Amino acid sequence: MSSSSKWIETAVDQMSSLPGIGRKTALRLVLDLLRRSNDEVERFSSSFQLMKQHVQFCSNCHNLSDDKLCGICSNDRRDKQTVCVVADIRDVMAVEGTSQFHGLYHVLCGLISPMDGIGPSDLTVQSLIERCERDHVTEIIFAFNATMEGETTAFYISKKLQALPIEITSIARGIAVGAELEYTDEITLGRSLQQRVPYGKANH
Amino acid sequence: MSSSSKWIETAVDQMSSLPGIGRKTALRLVLDLLRRSNDEVERFSSSFQLMKQHVQFCSNCHNLSDDKLCGICSNDRRDKQTVCVVADIRDVMAVEGTSQFHGLYHVLCGLISPMDGIGPSDLTVQSLIERCERDHVTEIIFAFNATMEGETTAFYISKKLQALPIEITSIARGIAVGAELEYTDEITLGRSLQQRVPYGKANH
Repeated sequence: MSSSSKWIETAVDQMSSLPGIGRKTALRLVLDLLRRSNDEVERFSSSFQLMKQHVQFCSNCHNLSDDKLCGICSNDRRDKQTVCVVADIRDVMAVEGTSQFHGLYHVLCGLISPMDGIGPSDLTVQSLIERCERDHVTEIIFAFNATMEGETTAFYISKKLQALPIEITSIARGIAVGAELEYTDEITLGRSLQQRVPYGKANH
Repeated sequence: MSSSSKWIETAVDQMSSLPGIGRKTALRLVLDLLRRSNDEVERFSSSFQLMKQHVQFCSNCHNLSDDKLCGICSNDRRDKQTVCVVADIRDVMAVEGTSQFHGLYHVLCGLISPMDGIGPSDLTVQSLIERCERDHVTEIIFAFNATMEGETTAFYISKKLQALPIEITSIARGIAVGAELEYTDEITLGRSLQQRVPYGKANH
């Protein structure tokens, strides 16, 4: 399917460069933009340029930020001694969405994966260790996906922090709230048995 | 899920204004853009602005065009006496994709739909009639979807062109190439029987 306009072709090329957007979908999106007013298209386009110009990484936790320190790190009411370590900025948003965590974050920008050639030096591990020493962190919580890479990364960091007086925890693995026991896989169910909690605590 | 940056929020708002793109998908697309170089983001954004600035409607057939006349209307090798009437510019691309049609197009920019309050005056019907008279068109082909709106529009235009010496045809309805008889719906199968063609002709 080719269009009669080279400007539309270019716009479709650009739109379909986004992950998961094929050329037919891209054409549909581009024609939707074409139907909008000049001002709306201007606002649409400039939002990405402005984002690229202004967004930077927080110098403390490596989360995306509008300033040198992100809104979470510069918030005085948050517990600076507890750090939740995550792989990706989207994980920060997921944990923040729970409203259950009041400490700070540390974004590793990936996980250790020898298969993909990603080692500790490609991540912000060193900055985490320095931060733990400097800020007298008392607890770090690993919030990684339950994959080989997640386990490896957690193991590596815990070894590195061995010498420091820091409590190291990991988010609980178990049966999702609302899920049914009979359909849960054996590994998850096994873990939820191993890591069982006193009855009164489970509901808080 | 909210981000720590208001620039990202704005970009996600804009991205999710596209049809079929939810906020989670929009965030994924925006973070993909954020990982690209400044130049790439600049090219991405400006492609939509340039498109909006330069693309216009062909004064003859109302297809999208970079100039006053589109590439099809200004092509001397195309048969200017045969006009394929379609509802939408995407239908032009679909018919062009077959490489079976060498005439010109006329884009109605919609179909007559009393339910949605769309009448002939909202479409480019008048311009089609003037064009048929001016350019001595000998055949018009309706290439509409097989819906109530398509039938209504075809009926209306054929009435309007009654007085002119123009052959009026419609694309054939029938069983798709490669489809199986037993799974075809009754209406399509019935039409394909009514509109049967001499055996030798069917394969050309």
